[in-house]
Amino acid sequence: MAGKQYLMTPGPTPVPPQVLAALAEPIVHHRGPDFRPIYERCLERLRAVYQTASDVLLLAASGTGGMESVVANLCRPGDRVLVVSAGRFAERWAEIAETWGCTVERLAYEWGSNPVPEDLPDALERMGGARIVFLTHSETSTGAVADVRELAAAAKATGALVAVDAISSLGAVPLETDEWELDAVVSGSQKALMTPPGLAFVSVSAAAQAAALEQEARSFYFDWRRILKAQSKLDAAFTPAVSLVRAQEVALGLILDAGLEEAFERHRRLGRACREGAKALGLDLFSPDDDSSAVVTAVRMPDAYDSGELVRALRDRFGITIANGQGELKGRIFRIGHIGYYDVFDVTTTLAAVEVALGDLGVPIERGGAVTRALEAYEDAMRV
Amino acid sequence: MAGKQYLMTPGPTPVPPQVLAALAEPIVHHRGPDFRPIYERCLERLRAVYQTASDVLLLAASGTGGMESVVANLCRPGDRVLVVSAGRFAERWAEIAETWGCTVERLAYEWGSNPVPEDLPDALERMGGARIVFLTHSETSTGAVADVRELAAAAKATGALVAVDAISSLGAVPLETDEWELDAVVSGSQKALMTPPGLAFVSVSAAAQAAALEQEARSFYFDWRRILKAQSKLDAAFTPAVSLVRAQEVALGLILDAGLEEAFERHRRLGRACREGAKALGLDLFSPDDDSSAVVTAVRMPDAYDSGELVRALRDRFGITIANGQGELKGRIFRIGHIGYYDVFDVTTTLAAVEVALGDLGVPIERGGAVTRALEAYEDAMRV
Repeated sequence: MAGKQYLMTPGPTPVPPQVLAALAEPIVHHRGPDFRPIYERCLERLRAVYQTASDVLLLAASGTGGMESVVANLCRPGDRVLVVSAGRFAERWAEIAETWGCTVERLAYEWGSNPVPEDLPDALERMGGARIVFLTHSETSTGAVADVRELAAAAKATGALVAVDAISSLGAVPLETDEWELDAVVSGSQKALMTPPGLAFVSVSAAAQAAALEQEARSFYFDWRRILKAQSKLDAAFTPAVSLVRAQEVALGLILDAGLEEAFERHRRLGRACREGAKALGLDLFSPDDDSSAVVTAVRMPDAYDSGELVRALRDRFGITIANGQGELKGRIFRIGHIGYYDVFDVTTTLAAVEVALGDLGVPIERGGAVTRALEAYEDAMRV
Repeated sequence: MAGKQYLMTPGPTPVPPQVLAALAEPIVHHRGPDFRPIYERCLERLRAVYQTASDVLLLAASGTGGMESVVANLCRPGDRVLVVSAGRFAERWAEIAETWGCTVERLAYEWGSNPVPEDLPDALERMGGARIVFLTHSETSTGAVADVRELAAAAKATGALVAVDAISSLGAVPLETDEWELDAVVSGSQKALMTPPGLAFVSVSAAAQAAALEQEARSFYFDWRRILKAQSKLDAAFTPAVSLVRAQEVALGLILDAGLEEAFERHRRLGRACREGAKALGLDLFSPDDDSSAVVTAVRMPDAYDSGELVRALRDRFGITIANGQGELKGRIFRIGHIGYYDVFDVTTTLAAVEVALGDLGVPIERGGAVTRALEAYEDAMRV
């Protein structure tokens, strides 16, 4: 028989059965009365998860499409922009901004570390100010979660717009769009929002809307004005991915029914459990070993061993999918996602399998303690 | 009880139950062995439906995103391009090209009529040649289906690249990408390809690939080079909409198992049935009354009546969704889609309901003959 499959990557992530069932409902027309209430609730729930009173745009695109929409609507050729970079996905901001003609400066940190908000004012002063500062909330390539609140405050103090990649973080760790004065926050359906990939979301502050209005549209498909205008009438500029929107509406309902605080607390505890379990195996963490690392746990593969072999062994022997490192980290780290539809037993399952597979590969590890340690850490981390 | 719902619009279209069931399958990772065979078959089946040996790019986007990718990859600012226009969706090519800095000329026809291939050489000569000629295969706003083969031949004779919007036509009416030397053909999941909206497809000829390579990437998300490179390794540049890809693979299998000729023949007969039924009601057609109109039937609303009232009556009384006219045609025509997962009884259901609803609205029509006439026409149109 086909074995059970366990999806433990940083995305796409598993989807609750209620959400899968919603996907299988008959297609409805996007301008008809069957879709409008779904669409309206989905947009409303997105604003709740974003903690914003502004518009959240809903796009048929991968998360990267949402990022491109930010650059296409807020950047003009020659604009100086700053990318705060400590991983692969921050570099994506830089690549997109360069593609659209920006002059990109970086405030760069070693991959796996966290940007230091206090460095931002100097960096901005050295470059003579930036039109936009691009941030990455959860750097999925390393497991580090940046202090977006403080980074944004430092950037806003200079008058820059702030754009945030919150693709893997929104709904997993606290992010307060309005309170933190974030101008454009990009997310996607396929991480903590527990829906298949294919939808991107972008919140746009009043300042971001004003900035977009000041310039000519540079993209048609990602033209915020067109999308905002349509959404204001509960219409869509282009045929929306109606099945995914329906599924997303259900998933957001599940999150909000339990409460955002439940989600943040659970992710924090899952991160703690995963880190403590990995350490109990005798492994070193690559992600920062603190409660901010609540989305993805990146673990160093012991020297002389290839993390790709572990990834393959887990997949082939146990049907468990985790992720290798990316770029220069390929083979050197492995990444366990604990995002969205996860509980502590997903973490213990993964740790148990990692323990067996590393043993099989002849990697020297501590046997027998990881699962128990993870469970203990999960309980200990509960806020009383 | 909630009444049965009938989706009879030009898109999104109904989806077969097998495809809905595929949507509800658990999420798999896009780089894992569970997804690769699905992805490979989906790409292979797309090439079969496109009738091309070249690459067909698979994007997470609405059809308009696919169109934008064509412009972003093939056009440079200041390029002179020609749009052959007889409806709303052709105008979309023009809008996108203008957004990306092209100098757009139009070869324009009255909405509802068909472009005349013989007009193209003169139009191109007058403007001193075009880098690209943009065509619309099935103009969903009017029901007219253009002779893309002849239009493309006339354009190619001048050395222009040819881009085609085949969003509502691919899989419904014959289109031979390689044989007709089409450089970029855009389609989408949600019309004749019987899958929910959210995927766009773009075939890229060798000439189109060469042209894209000659210029710097102007979009990151729609960068054909990046996408081609990933697809050549059965990878995806950005997280693909895995559920939709899985569903699309099933739907393409259904189409190809029956054979493309079956689909073309069925759509031709459905178009004939719908037109003859509408005429039997005493109504005038807006789409051309010939077998090319196999995708959407547009019908004139008798003067002094508003087609919006008919659309609402069908929806509210019978749960049947058809489409109003767009732009200047709003209120003046109504449109019945017969695309994809349709058979003749969908046409007769719609005609029967239109007959009752128009009667209720006091519109003078011929009663009693439409359904029978449609069934006869469907049989008569069978090729023996």
